[in-house]
Amino acid sequence: MNIGFIGLGNMGAPMARNLVHSGHALTVYNRTRKEIEGAAFFTSASQLGASADVLMTMVADDAALRAVMLEEKGAIHSMKRGAFHVSMSTISVALSKELTALHAERGQIFVSAPVFGRPDAATAAKLWVVSAGPLFAIDKCRPLFEVLGQGIFVVGDDPPAANVVKLCGNFMIASTMESLGEAMAFARKSGVKASDLLNVLTGSLFNAPIYKNYGTLIAEERYEPPGLRMRLGLKDLRLVLAAADAVDAPMPTASIVHDTMLTAVANGLGDIDWSGVGRISAERAGLGTKPRI
Amino acid sequence: MNIGFIGLGNMGAPMARNLVHSGHALTVYNRTRKEIEGAAFFTSASQLGASADVLMTMVADDAALRAVMLEEKGAIHSMKRGAFHVSMSTISVALSKELTALHAERGQIFVSAPVFGRPDAATAAKLWVVSAGPLFAIDKCRPLFEVLGQGIFVVGDDPPAANVVKLCGNFMIASTMESLGEAMAFARKSGVKASDLLNVLTGSLFNAPIYKNYGTLIAEERYEPPGLRMRLGLKDLRLVLAAADAVDAPMPTASIVHDTMLTAVANGLGDIDWSGVGRISAERAGLGTKPRI
Amino acid sequence: MNIGFIGLGNMGAPMARNLVHSGHALTVYNRTRKEIEGAAFFTSASQLGASADVLMTMVADDAALRAVMLEEKGAIHSMKRGAFHVSMSTISVALSKELTALHAERGQIFVSAPVFGRPDAATAAKLWVVSAGPLFAIDKCRPLFEVLGQGIFVVGDDPPAANVVKLCGNFMIASTMESLGEAMAFARKSGVKASDLLNVLTGSLFNAPIYKNYGTLIAEERYEPPGLRMRLGLKDLRLVLAAADAVDAPMPTASIVHDTMLTAVANGLGDIDWSGVGRISAERAGLGTKPRI
Amino acid sequence: MNIGFIGLGNMGAPMARNLVHSGHALTVYNRTRKEIEGAAFFTSASQLGASADVLMTMVADDAALRAVMLEEKGAIHSMKRGAFHVSMSTISVALSKELTALHAERGQIFVSAPVFGRPDAATAAKLWVVSAGPLFAIDKCRPLFEVLGQGIFVVGDDPPAANVVKLCGNFMIASTMESLGEAMAFARKSGVKASDLLNVLTGSLFNAPIYKNYGTLIAEERYEPPGLRMRLGLKDLRLVLAAADAVDAPMPTASIVHDTMLTAVANGLGDIDWSGVGRISAERAGLGTKPRI
Repeated sequence: MNIGFIGLGNMGAPMARNLVHSGHALTVYNRTRKEIEGAAFFTSASQLGASADVLMTMVADDAALRAVMLEEKGAIHSMKRGAFHVSMSTISVALSKELTALHAERGQIFVSAPVFGRPDAATAAKLWVVSAGPLFAIDKCRPLFEVLGQGIFVVGDDPPAANVVKLCGNFMIASTMESLGEAMAFARKSGVKASDLLNVLTGSLFNAPIYKNYGTLIAEERYEPPGLRMRLGLKDLRLVLAAADAVDAPMPTASIVHDTMLTAVANGLGDIDWSGVGRISAERAGLGTKPRI
Repeated sequence: MNIGFIGLGNMGAPMARNLVHSGHALTVYNRTRKEIEGAAFFTSASQLGASADVLMTMVADDAALRAVMLEEKGAIHSMKRGAFHVSMSTISVALSKELTALHAERGQIFVSAPVFGRPDAATAAKLWVVSAGPLFAIDKCRPLFEVLGQGIFVVGDDPPAANVVKLCGNFMIASTMESLGEAMAFARKSGVKASDLLNVLTGSLFNAPIYKNYGTLIAEERYEPPGLRMRLGLKDLRLVLAAADAVDAPMPTASIVHDTMLTAVANGLGDIDWSGVGRISAERAGLGTKPRI
Repeated sequence: MNIGFIGLGNMGAPMARNLVHSGHALTVYNRTRKEIEGAAFFTSASQLGASADVLMTMVADDAALRAVMLEEKGAIHSMKRGAFHVSMSTISVALSKELTALHAERGQIFVSAPVFGRPDAATAAKLWVVSAGPLFAIDKCRPLFEVLGQGIFVVGDDPPAANVVKLCGNFMIASTMESLGEAMAFARKSGVKASDLLNVLTGSLFNAPIYKNYGTLIAEERYEPPGLRMRLGLKDLRLVLAAADAVDAPMPTASIVHDTMLTAVANGLGDIDWSGVGRISAERAGLGTKPRI
Repeated sequence: MNIGFIGLGNMGAPMARNLVHSGHALTVYNRTRKEIEGAAFFTSASQLGASADVLMTMVADDAALRAVMLEEKGAIHSMKRGAFHVSMSTISVALSKELTALHAERGQIFVSAPVFGRPDAATAAKLWVVSAGPLFAIDKCRPLFEVLGQGIFVVGDDPPAANVVKLCGNFMIASTMESLGEAMAFARKSGVKASDLLNVLTGSLFNAPIYKNYGTLIAEERYEPPGLRMRLGLKDLRLVLAAADAVDAPMPTASIVHDTMLTAVANGLGDIDWSGVGRISAERAGLGTKPRI
């Protein structure tokens, strides 16, 4: 089974390396040339698509995925009938629907399998893979997912379902950060240390890593270097709101978080960590913040 | 050391029993007569206040605490100089400030020590106690707190700080439920089962009990019988917004949750569980819900 | 008919003068001594209350009205049975209810008659009076209202109704300013001059003075000197939200405006004009503003 | 000067008739054949485009404008160098930008001139025209605009500016209705008649037709027949939010209105008048409404 892998960025490169280390035959493509030891580099997505039995994509956004898959020289045109496209990027539900239809027309198999986890989790093979698509196809991909992650979820046979779940997860993270930021600003203005509040929360009901990790960043106002940049977090909120809008599901909290992130980006904070929503809450409350970048 | 205990409701009764079982000499008072085996019942708060070295209060709200402590026959007037008032109810920050001042005027010691946990946690002595007040006083109360809970936090020497933290915790729970409700409505309208979404969340980044417990109630639309009634949850959000307003800290997410809860109460849902915010999200999205009560 | 008038601030003083000029016998009281030519100054609210057939009050807020009417030396205790209290201040619906009950207990007549208009309108006798109370009483007060204003509205026989309408009016003004501020920030960031947008709006569908007046302040970022200070505007929004909350009516737009005003006050802008909500919208959008005060 | 007119719907048909009556030589096109007395009907947009010196378009939305202008047989491909395209539809800012660029590439002149006013205003030639584009071109179009409307505004030489202003106007109308709906629900739950509140507002500070017209619909809960359907109002709010998002301008009030409209559409109310946002406010407050359609 020839595996093609497109997208060798912060996430894709360690994922590709893990696939090589596990003994899979891998060929790779990236917009700019990048070497993955043990994998052959192809100079076009189209060429890679022609040779792959399973084509995995891990790119930045809808535009990047359109570029490598759907545009004139995109891989979809060269992929064989019966070949798999396993899309692991965080993309819009709309594009996932479009790919579902386009691959079906061509007799190709589309599996949607976005992941939770940052680059360090990708390196450590500790991603969480959320998959949806034909069940036989997911079964066939499972060994690959097991190489990449610590947990695999299947959320049905309709590929866009996995993108919905992935976007919901990002929304839950973002709204948690927004709530923590608001609570900490309120606490600080009431004379309570943010770290004291956080200790209580994480020491009692909120003992999940997400509260400890993001809560500490907000409590310590440590928004640099960024894990996920604010502008990319905002992009994800846009995807959430667009997909919810398309199915007539109001999400007022998502609008709040979107506006907080938009305020950050509009004020030159697009490149701090997305937990920097806490900084906007602090500024709204008139709290002094560390000097701007 | 004579311990007086006021408030024998769903929370107070098991707490009082645990104190008796641990060997403390306890006298109790409640607006309506209630027996706690091993504890003498006093027929007035004032009488109880006069005899107690440590007076613990666990009542429903500000009005109830004012009634037993501050009104004409309230315990504050009969308490000895040097006696302790340990307030464990969820009350407003404003009342906590008022009590701090009034006890100080009388040479009494005020400790604020609200708790996290539902009646079953009170029975099992698994509450989380968030305390603030003079540190020597908290040290003296610590053995009592250890009888009642599984964890004790100290958030400074200013009593209202504990109330701020308690309210922040309730806000975090409520905003988590709101976000879960919005996400599940979006997911359901996109053809994804709420339970599938929840499995991914709790199986990956959100593995805290709070997500499992409330998430399951929302996913299964199981809002009765209530754990905490919607109208009481709304009361807490009101306390959050009032306290944040008083220190000029905007909390847009708290306003959203408040409005969702207010919508529920306005539509006859004041007595379902407060996780019923998920029902309002579902109705906003036009999703069929189970028949109303 | 002896008319007593309490409250000689920016609004009350010109109103009292207009009553004197129209030939009414007027006695006045103010917390700090102030002369109104042609009116006798009484040194206590209580003394004034005892002598008045109709007692008019025009003070800053609930606290001020409580001080002159309800506290130990308040006028309510000295007012005659059958005397009128005409309350023209912007106060809470709750206090209006309380006054309705307290005056009824004493056989006094309570008329609620808050006004729309700024000090210049008070001077020019161009206020709008919104009244509610027993209809015979409003009829008797009508000649007084006609001295003060250009229009008189009656909204029923329950006094708090007038306060509800007054608060709704202030909410409508505030939400209009918020919307204008958001629209102008969006327009400016899109390369459209705020004044061009305003010209279109006021030249077509929005040809009411309120759009011209406040719109010009926002378009020109002219927030000083204040007409109504931001912190007083915020006070009114708090009254709106409290009254709506008390009857279970969610007002999400009021929460938005409240948060914008709270952001202003928290950032040292409590003394600019309340149209300064436009400044907060501009800052959220990252637009340069004139230097802070 | 040959004038071509594309789009003969509720708005376009009366506009085309007015142009004929004023003596202009007009040719017309519509997706489905429709007769305008005095104007020749062309069976393709492309054919019409080839013959027109000035091509006016008045269609439903972005998709419709793309279909007649940009798709394979769209008019842009057949239009002469130096010919004018005057776009009067309510379209996205993004499409307006795209058309600006595409016409420039072809040496054609693009004028953006969306209008305020409903079909009855179109018939009565009482539209308000908001125009932007090269000033010489707007001067040349002015006689045409004068035939159609009662007022012409010029908001600069960049065509998308007119679309921004048009969208801001629609946002101002929608947010006014939302605020009125919230205020009336609050008033009604406080025992105040919605019509009493409206009388005060429109009789004092809010004496613009927009308050009288929409306010009456909301006060009387008269949401049918629709003037502008809810789903089309929602479409406009989506355009506002998309354009504001693209320039990093947070518009929290627009998000609120969007969510109210989305709630309406999700609950089967997409075809009532867009003032039906008042109905959602009433339902949120638990007020009985007239039976659903």
